[in-house]
Amino acid sequence: MSTKKSEFGVFGLGVMGSSISLNIADKGYELSVYNRAEGGEEEVVDRFMSANEHRKNIQGFTDLKRFIASIAKPRKMLIMIKAGPTVDLVLNNLFPLLSKGDIIIDGGNSHYLNTKRRFEQAQSHGIEFIGAGISGGEEGARKGPSIMPGGKKESYDLVAAVLESIAAKDDFGKTCCTYIGPEGSGHFIKMVHNGIEYVEMQLLTELYALMSNKMSNEEIAEVFESWNEGALSSYLLEITVQILKKKEGDKYLLDLILDKAGNKGTGSWSSKAAFDLGIPNTMMSSAVFARYISSFKDVRIKMSGLIDSRQSIDGDQNLVSLKKAYECARLINHQQGFKLMQFASDTYKWGLNFSDIARIWSNGCIIKSHLMNELHKEFQCSADLFDMDLVTDQLINGESDLRETLILGLRQRVSTHCFSSSYHYWVDMTTKSLPANLIQAQRDFFGAHTYQRVDSPESEFYHTQW
Amino acid sequence: MSTKKSEFGVFGLGVMGSSISLNIADKGYELSVYNRAEGGEEEVVDRFMSANEHRKNIQGFTDLKRFIASIAKPRKMLIMIKAGPTVDLVLNNLFPLLSKGDIIIDGGNSHYLNTKRRFEQAQSHGIEFIGAGISGGEEGARKGPSIMPGGKKESYDLVAAVLESIAAKDDFGKTCCTYIGPEGSGHFIKMVHNGIEYVEMQLLTELYALMSNKMSNEEIAEVFESWNEGALSSYLLEITVQILKKKEGDKYLLDLILDKAGNKGTGSWSSKAAFDLGIPNTMMSSAVFARYISSFKDVRIKMSGLIDSRQSIDGDQNLVSLKKAYECARLINHQQGFKLMQFASDTYKWGLNFSDIARIWSNGCIIKSHLMNELHKEFQCSADLFDMDLVTDQLINGESDLRETLILGLRQRVSTHCFSSSYHYWVDMTTKSLPANLIQAQRDFFGAHTYQRVDSPESEFYHTQW
Repeated sequence: MSTKKSEFGVFGLGVMGSSISLNIADKGYELSVYNRAEGGEEEVVDRFMSANEHRKNIQGFTDLKRFIASIAKPRKMLIMIKAGPTVDLVLNNLFPLLSKGDIIIDGGNSHYLNTKRRFEQAQSHGIEFIGAGISGGEEGARKGPSIMPGGKKESYDLVAAVLESIAAKDDFGKTCCTYIGPEGSGHFIKMVHNGIEYVEMQLLTELYALMSNKMSNEEIAEVFESWNEGALSSYLLEITVQILKKKEGDKYLLDLILDKAGNKGTGSWSSKAAFDLGIPNTMMSSAVFARYISSFKDVRIKMSGLIDSRQSIDGDQNLVSLKKAYECARLINHQQGFKLMQFASDTYKWGLNFSDIARIWSNGCIIKSHLMNELHKEFQCSADLFDMDLVTDQLINGESDLRETLILGLRQRVSTHCFSSSYHYWVDMTTKSLPANLIQAQRDFFGAHTYQRVDSPESEFYHTQW
Repeated sequence: MSTKKSEFGVFGLGVMGSSISLNIADKGYELSVYNRAEGGEEEVVDRFMSANEHRKNIQGFTDLKRFIASIAKPRKMLIMIKAGPTVDLVLNNLFPLLSKGDIIIDGGNSHYLNTKRRFEQAQSHGIEFIGAGISGGEEGARKGPSIMPGGKKESYDLVAAVLESIAAKDDFGKTCCTYIGPEGSGHFIKMVHNGIEYVEMQLLTELYALMSNKMSNEEIAEVFESWNEGALSSYLLEITVQILKKKEGDKYLLDLILDKAGNKGTGSWSSKAAFDLGIPNTMMSSAVFARYISSFKDVRIKMSGLIDSRQSIDGDQNLVSLKKAYECARLINHQQGFKLMQFASDTYKWGLNFSDIARIWSNGCIIKSHLMNELHKEFQCSADLFDMDLVTDQLINGESDLRETLILGLRQRVSTHCFSSSYHYWVDMTTKSLPANLIQAQRDFFGAHTYQRVDSPESEFYHTQW
């Protein structure tokens, strides 16, 4: 084995770790890779090294000390392991073996609060820590993911060359990796990325349900395909076309898939973060809840026996209206997602750059889309989607289509969780006087929580003996 | 001052602590009360004692050691202080001064996970700890609240006489206080109680908004008043009638109250707990989000300028339909709330008794209602509202009214966050085949998350090279 020191290390050769290692090796870096040789993983490193024996710039290890010794100081090391307590176990093993100034990058889907804690823990050992969200799945990891690194800027600068070389490229050839901000900020925005993804998936799912009464999978695919040629184009729309067309024998594969949606938690993390920050990201919660509801298949089967079979609708779906409603709901989804990041940035003083974030999400990641490219430009002038004419013009113009889509769902007895929550949010956000005065009156009535008045400064609080 | 030992102690003489102390004293118990004499609270105990000098069974203290010494062992002590870190400070002061077997009851709105932690911490000091949710506001505390104590049953038995004597009485004269279950279970159900309360308030708010286009506050009050005479009767409906009628000079007070709703957090805790448990309590999240949205008044004013003024509707509201929709939405709210508790009970092995919980919520608390009395009976035979004919018959019968109510909101450009989320939940829960197969296909496409099939056992997972 070579005695030359490696420039970079990858800890963990799972699907994502292997793919990203090959991506790094492709770029010509001298690389050390490590995987444990126990717990059924005895042959992981051997298999990886055999499959890549033509590559001369990779050294494989199952001995942690030798792996660490093989990397040039200050060591730069990406850990690609399952998020959760395992990360703490690994870090506790690594800290005593590393030297001051070495840099660990956690490339998993860790919770941003864990990343903040680990950042501080690493600092206490003299180790630099970067929490990097990585999106794009296996293919992205291999060919170019979107990378969202958070931590100290000085630490990032030392690993920037490697990370930026392996990331996807945007429309202008710039890398889809940029420094995000301090401590947990990279993992926070990856979490929000996934929340936006949940909603985009759910919107497509609701459209599919609204269309499938009268249209075949092939016909729906054709509609989506035409939409994907214009301003609505996105990776998720594109793969949905492929999914709808996929056949198994003479059947559509989609029709054979069980309607119980799973989840890995990042959608619910986004929703919980919104509650912690006090901001209404109604669509992410609706999307997560729609998945939860689907999982109660036994209850659904039983309860469906109580209901008359689905009403058929009068007339065809208005596809023009559905398309405009979809455009509006996507805009509101992105408004809510970016708003959530803006609140976090303000609250935690992260100084996030939303134009940059939209840019690195314009390729390599699951929510890449034409819209994201537009937002990259728009965020250079505006801090919020509701300040962008591009956005508000479409929403004002499409509000009635959103309404028609909800009514179509009501007529068909098809639920529209995300379309509905986008609409009600939009209506309230454009309504000067809401009925929330009644909430305040009730709270003051039973709990003496006080209220403000329309005829007094907001700094004054009143209580009434009702 | 008497040298006779007190039977019970109350720590904290805020509004709730004072009220509950007088309630306890009314029942003839020898009582010690304590409040600190610093931080602007120098005269709290003096004022309380002066106002109650005719009572011979209360001793007041500002010295913690003397307060503790004044209570007979094993000491029984209710702390009534603001939930949060203060509780930990107080407990850390109390633990070294107490004796093995003494019992502390936390009567504040503590988070159930904090209660679990404090329970364990107290045990390590040999102290017994009870986390007791107390609902009913100031008036309830004084005249009879609903009390939800969680902890060890043996500890509860030692304080049961006092707690049960001060609680409200149900329709049959039984006390609205019962042992709930281990550790944080009492505070958990109080949290869910508040979540249900958020939704009940929001539903009334949405009805008020839907009616107020064409009806005066007085007219809406009359409708609500007539509803409150029948099966829909509840404390929140009753106070809403009073609020709608309240005048200040020649104006309705409600019209002078600012439409920015506040919150104290328990609503968002319920929503977050639902995400942790993976269950879809769509209505609580919607109610909390509606409050958050209302708080963005500046944005709302600005954005309202973009929108044409509200459309007037054709024809009158169908009050019969609104009433039936309200009945349905309330049932779904209670189904979701009790389901959340059932999941928590199963997950944490609390063995909650839902008939008992409905019973102690039938009086003394903010969500007391005729429905709660019905649920007390129904839960003796059924584990879930969806297993009760009383519930499903109304929902099947009222589904079209729920739909009409959403359409009314759409026509009026009035948001119906909670009515909508109740409806979509109901529709999905009674739908055998949902479009969630598309979600699973998408997840498998980009993340190799695998899917189950309708033509294979659910234990088998498939992956496709799409």
